[in-house]
Amino acid sequence: MQRPAGTSDNITGLRIRMDTIGRVALLLVLAEDPQAVMASAPAYQIVLGHVGTMDVQKIIAAIETAARRERFIGPEYAEEHALYHATIEALHGISRGQIALGTLLRTVGLRFSLVRGPRLPSDQTTWIAVALFGTIGQPVKGMEHEVVGLGIFHV
Amino acid sequence: MQRPAGTSDNITGLRIRMDTIGRVALLLVLAEDPQAVMASAPAYQIVLGHVGTMDVQKIIAAIETAARRERFIGPEYAEEHALYHATIEALHGISRGQIALGTLLRTVGLRFSLVRGPRLPSDQTTWIAVALFGTIGQPVKGMEHEVVGLGIFHV
Amino acid sequence: MQRPAGTSDNITGLRIRMDTIGRVALLLVLAEDPQAVMASAPAYQIVLGHVGTMDVQKIIAAIETAARRERFIGPEYAEEHALYHATIEALHGISRGQIALGTLLRTVGLRFSLVRGPRLPSDQTTWIAVALFGTIGQPVKGMEHEVVGLGIFHV
Amino acid sequence: MQRPAGTSDNITGLRIRMDTIGRVALLLVLAEDPQAVMASAPAYQIVLGHVGTMDVQKIIAAIETAARRERFIGPEYAEEHALYHATIEALHGISRGQIALGTLLRTVGLRFSLVRGPRLPSDQTTWIAVALFGTIGQPVKGMEHEVVGLGIFHV
Amino acid sequence: MQRPAGTSDNITGLRIRMDTIGRVALLLVLAEDPQAVMASAPAYQIVLGHVGTMDVQKIIAAIETAARRERFIGPEYAEEHALYHATIEALHGISRGQIALGTLLRTVGLRFSLVRGPRLPSDQTTWIAVALFGTIGQPVKGMEHEVVGLGIFHV
Amino acid sequence: MQRPAGTSDNITGLRIRMDTIGRVALLLVLAEDPQAVMASAPAYQIVLGHVGTMDVQKIIAAIETAARRERFIGPEYAEEHALYHATIEALHGISRGQIALGTLLRTVGLRFSLVRGPRLPSDQTTWIAVALFGTIGQPVKGMEHEVVGLGIFHV
Repeated sequence: MQRPAGTSDNITGLRIRMDTIGRVALLLVLAEDPQAVMASAPAYQIVLGHVGTMDVQKIIAAIETAARRERFIGPEYAEEHALYHATIEALHGISRGQIALGTLLRTVGLRFSLVRGPRLPSDQTTWIAVALFGTIGQPVKGMEHEVVGLGIFHV
Repeated sequence: MQRPAGTSDNITGLRIRMDTIGRVALLLVLAEDPQAVMASAPAYQIVLGHVGTMDVQKIIAAIETAARRERFIGPEYAEEHALYHATIEALHGISRGQIALGTLLRTVGLRFSLVRGPRLPSDQTTWIAVALFGTIGQPVKGMEHEVVGLGIFHV
Repeated sequence: MQRPAGTSDNITGLRIRMDTIGRVALLLVLAEDPQAVMASAPAYQIVLGHVGTMDVQKIIAAIETAARRERFIGPEYAEEHALYHATIEALHGISRGQIALGTLLRTVGLRFSLVRGPRLPSDQTTWIAVALFGTIGQPVKGMEHEVVGLGIFHV
Repeated sequence: MQRPAGTSDNITGLRIRMDTIGRVALLLVLAEDPQAVMASAPAYQIVLGHVGTMDVQKIIAAIETAARRERFIGPEYAEEHALYHATIEALHGISRGQIALGTLLRTVGLRFSLVRGPRLPSDQTTWIAVALFGTIGQPVKGMEHEVVGLGIFHV
Repeated sequence: MQRPAGTSDNITGLRIRMDTIGRVALLLVLAEDPQAVMASAPAYQIVLGHVGTMDVQKIIAAIETAARRERFIGPEYAEEHALYHATIEALHGISRGQIALGTLLRTVGLRFSLVRGPRLPSDQTTWIAVALFGTIGQPVKGMEHEVVGLGIFHV
Repeated sequence: MQRPAGTSDNITGLRIRMDTIGRVALLLVLAEDPQAVMASAPAYQIVLGHVGTMDVQKIIAAIETAARRERFIGPEYAEEHALYHATIEALHGISRGQIALGTLLRTVGLRFSLVRGPRLPSDQTTWIAVALFGTIGQPVKGMEHEVVGLGIFHV
């Protein structure tokens, strides 16, 4: 999406809770300065990335590659399984009905965040959140609108 | 979700663009002070609400009732149609696979925002965004995790 | 849908092939005079009906009741199974994504036709077609648009 | 589907209302002489075409190409968005469960019509209808049956 | 399903591996003597039950109630979450397209097994399997055929 | 899945009814010695095979090729139609939500059985069952778990 030069539309005084895994994951993909979000959420392990594609499998592959490279998940299949299902659930929010892109003649440009830790402050268990935010639309610049997805799984 | 008394986990110095309809809709359901978001997005007409239920149709009804009460949509069916489809698309992000709650033995507690205006600063057309954020889970307190959904339609 | 008094919008000189099971089923629910369609398709056994409801199961039940009453299907479960699957496939065209009505706060008013015979003139096997045509929309008069569905199964 | 030479199965005396957008769209893909349907529906802008493929995206592309060439939709993304969603809804009727062709080892031969205008005579708003009719089946001649789909969206 | 008196159709000399969680879960719902299966799979914790209903949520509730009563899952939500998702995945095999029973005018009679342990002998992690087997059909005795479902999740 | 050398985990004394089409189909893909199952089910025509792939259409093609080669189905499209729908229903159990493999970055290794005959001893009609059993997972050895699917259609 084109952004007018010199825009001052950023909001900086907003109060948002940063103590739940879902809010942290969403703010990481929404904020202009995700480093500030990371600094505010020390309880969580975080991986960031972005991907633009018409192939669903490339989104999944980009997330898995980033997760392995950053040692976000361990070597056991159970960890991979949790990340995979969290990713698929996030893709439902992006796709809204059927997880398909190029086969339905549409393309996405997405930022993603992977967050690992408790669901909320009192939680003693570990969960994985995958957040996706960006645009979906025709393979023509400007023919697109925003989409979001969030998947959360126990690990 | 329980929130520890005296938490200081709010983030206030975050920079987030407020010039696209999707970001505005999402921040409205994520922020502790949605009024601050509204003040930062004067180009958009906004309606806020919340709903807790095991019946999908009650979410749709709550959104339509709020929209009519606040004159968010006009009297023509075309406007209703746009709001309905934006809501259904947001529900895909909440449901992740099949739009069903009680029939799958799960319940939600959701905040919703309805936003009307251009997709982005250079857009001359009018769109409707429906954002949902909250928790989904078993009908037992604490047995839940966060979910998000966003639907955007032309009007 | 309201129809202006004295409308002369009917078309009468149209040429449509009546030698395939799907065309016959669709014309039966589209025509103002389905008896004329029946007279033009002597190779087929035909049952007609209509149903207005917010409950999907009432559409299925209306079709099955009409089929049994008119001896459209025999007593074996295999015949029931064919009719059931043809009905479900027709409902996909009506629902476009998820077979649900009242749970998604929408209602239908439908005419249905059941047609039994060969797929086309050279076909030696027997098939069942279920066609649905009418309107779907909000439970408010006038807040609706047209929908169609067609399911065809071997028997 | 093969059609016996010299068939006289056409029906010509049928009375069908031509004052709603869905009926017009469906008759255009059902009739042997769509020009007669067009002549009977002067209130509507109409585009016709056909496509045979195992790739869903080629159906969408054929419809979009025809629409742009005939100036059926304007240059704004909102118009494209309406056409896209109407097409996807029509594809649900064709696919009955999951929008996929070659990946499920099936192929289609379809006629399509695009119709733009009011839903019905008293309607002051503008809508787009996409109708699809033809056959679906195995990639072997004769191994197929008829399918229909209709999608209607405000524009 | 009716079973002729004095049938000798049981097979007893069959060789089936019992060292993977899925095979154990499936044999438990297929065998006439599930106790023999349990005795052959000492590495797994097992719960058995059955349910007949037109309400999907009653299947989920029956499984969760049995699991809690037999201490198959611990008190943490992560355990409940694993069991819930394994159940939903098994229900996909039963429903084949949309998880719905009475709303689609069909009913089930099912045996279920819950199995907890490693996926296979060399696996060091713990998984939950939910298997369902029985019949689905019209709410008329004899109008039904068999169905199976299996869901496996890490815990 | 790796199997430790010299395992004695096979069960041989199990009693399982072999008088219904679904049980026969499932035991054929579960047993180490499917020939013993075949010998115990003389009332049924049976075809066996296996397929490993990331392409859904290759599973369908493998089943259709085996069926034609073994004359499991006759030359009429109605027979092909029954086998196709039984296969698609079995694939729902394998896919659990959306029938897709490589496009969701997952792969399968499956045994399949095709069984033709009565649903149960007292049934005078003919049905087709397709059973699938094996593993699904990431395209990395060991990153997988078991899946099952069963589809039953009248013919």
